[in-house]
Amino acid sequence: MENQKEVAEFNAYREKMNEKILGSDNLVLKRLFNLDTNTYEDGALPSITKEMLGFVASMVLRCGDCIKYHLGKCADFGVTTPQMFEIFAVANIVGGTIVIPHTRRALGYWEELMAAK
Amino acid sequence: MENQKEVAEFNAYREKMNEKILGSDNLVLKRLFNLDTNTYEDGALPSITKEMLGFVASMVLRCGDCIKYHLGKCADFGVTTPQMFEIFAVANIVGGTIVIPHTRRALGYWEELMAAK
Amino acid sequence: MENQKEVAEFNAYREKMNEKILGSDNLVLKRLFNLDTNTYEDGALPSITKEMLGFVASMVLRCGDCIKYHLGKCADFGVTTPQMFEIFAVANIVGGTIVIPHTRRALGYWEELMAAK
Amino acid sequence: MENQKEVAEFNAYREKMNEKILGSDNLVLKRLFNLDTNTYEDGALPSITKEMLGFVASMVLRCGDCIKYHLGKCADFGVTTPQMFEIFAVANIVGGTIVIPHTRRALGYWEELMAAK
Amino acid sequence: MENQKEVAEFNAYREKMNEKILGSDNLVLKRLFNLDTNTYEDGALPSITKEMLGFVASMVLRCGDCIKYHLGKCADFGVTTPQMFEIFAVANIVGGTIVIPHTRRALGYWEELMAAK
Amino acid sequence: MENQKEVAEFNAYREKMNEKILGSDNLVLKRLFNLDTNTYEDGALPSITKEMLGFVASMVLRCGDCIKYHLGKCADFGVTTPQMFEIFAVANIVGGTIVIPHTRRALGYWEELMAAK
Repeated sequence: MENQKEVAEFNAYREKMNEKILGSDNLVLKRLFNLDTNTYEDGALPSITKEMLGFVASMVLRCGDCIKYHLGKCADFGVTTPQMFEIFAVANIVGGTIVIPHTRRALGYWEELMAAK
Repeated sequence: MENQKEVAEFNAYREKMNEKILGSDNLVLKRLFNLDTNTYEDGALPSITKEMLGFVASMVLRCGDCIKYHLGKCADFGVTTPQMFEIFAVANIVGGTIVIPHTRRALGYWEELMAAK
Repeated sequence: MENQKEVAEFNAYREKMNEKILGSDNLVLKRLFNLDTNTYEDGALPSITKEMLGFVASMVLRCGDCIKYHLGKCADFGVTTPQMFEIFAVANIVGGTIVIPHTRRALGYWEELMAAK
Repeated sequence: MENQKEVAEFNAYREKMNEKILGSDNLVLKRLFNLDTNTYEDGALPSITKEMLGFVASMVLRCGDCIKYHLGKCADFGVTTPQMFEIFAVANIVGGTIVIPHTRRALGYWEELMAAK
Repeated sequence: MENQKEVAEFNAYREKMNEKILGSDNLVLKRLFNLDTNTYEDGALPSITKEMLGFVASMVLRCGDCIKYHLGKCADFGVTTPQMFEIFAVANIVGGTIVIPHTRRALGYWEELMAAK
Repeated sequence: MENQKEVAEFNAYREKMNEKILGSDNLVLKRLFNLDTNTYEDGALPSITKEMLGFVASMVLRCGDCIKYHLGKCADFGVTTPQMFEIFAVANIVGGTIVIPHTRRALGYWEELMAAK
């Protein structure tokens, strides 16, 4: 598979740069990163639902790296492939055909995540 | 409550104009409207989850009327107020403070929906 | 028709505020306004096609006042109602169901423009 | 002036709804609201510059209520009308003519703020 | 020319991934893909005009792969280079200078399409 | 540093394609490019402030190449790293966590610019 290392590369780059950002002494960014983590914790809604929400939001906003991040989380929480396709469907209906290119790339990344399970 | 009739007015206007659009002989629009309905039907994910997905997508895309529509559906499917606040939180973290004005208005509309239950 | 004066009100407000903006001595804004006019003049493509392009762009970007402005221009250049519905279809397919609310309002405004012909 | 009470109405509605949101026990939203305040405090850049940054960001993202909020802050910090027009110019060049409708409304609101000084 | 194979690579990737998406049993996505094709068929407006509309919408929404797809279609239908520049102009005026980077890449892709004629 | 040549490559590509665009006889695009330059000249606000405004606008609109261009200009005008982090903070708070991926890439590019000073 051509993108076999896409997951590993994305995670490594993300981690390296996040460390640099958190290594600065900018309190607003540090707190926003913490808050971002808190947002998806179990509460009135379980984490798996919140990750699906974060994922569909990333799809319609067409943020490639956000999509990869939430795909990884959805895979961790056990979202199934038929469920993932239904989330793709919501994203494409709400956001239109401009979401199709991100659906193509998301599917490639998802297949790599599933293959690694 | 100042907006007591916001729900009724929104629904009436939406219905009237949708009928006009569907009354035209444009097949693409008719089929898209049908497809929009299909998207949120029970499948690998239940309708309630899909409505939450449609709602959070509408929030981050800041589509006022879409927000109202999905708030109505979420209320019908039994989403609770603490759950709704957690969806607001995801939308505001992903989409930033530009989502706050829609959160204010969504809360007003949600209160009206809850009061009518 | 409830919105019978929507066209007149929009044009009056637009004209009044544009005069204020042009009355300031900000050269960038003045030149941008001129350039905006030049953009839609007959060239390799006729003005009617360019107005349709400006209209569909305004639809997918969901800019309510831009939509009204280009609807007025499309009406002036003789775009027909079946053609307008096909442009609505392109906008809704490319931009998704978040374009539907603007389609509803655009149709109301278009009907008023057609009634005034 | 037709909009003479626009500032007062906006501030009252914003305050009322913010209290409701903060009155809920959603920690993510509470912390995000606090963080939003911290973001614009004096630091390596003075507050006035940060408010201009927040304002131009609101303009290109076409968030009407965010625009009003930052206009109020810019007025408080002493941004002048010629400076404001230059920020309008940056917003319109970067974001295109779809920013013009928000420029019209922003100017009306700014005039009301200046008249109240 | 450095990107000499950009068209072939884009088409191959697009086709491969579309097959995978259509190969799933998600009816909403299948129907949306069909509807997308229907949208650009001759009707009250000819296909060439609809492809120009789809292209300008893709430009202002800054969807790189959508831009490539519609550039290919515009080339097939005989849009000329001076006409293409006028569509670029509409997109840049409506959408602002953030559209310039996509204009640069669109021009490179267009040149490759024209060279292959 | 892996991206050591990112600045040089970006500038070369940008220059080459801008020449092609300006080499066409499309007056609207030529004038828009000129106007873009005028926008950031010293006026009621100094160029450094305007470049910061252009940068934050590019961040929230998530335009990668616009971000690189304005980072280069900010570096030329002497914006410091702590100031740059505060602009990142405004962009991430206003635009949400979807701005984080662009913050990561912007920081990598900024480090390369600072290393070349």
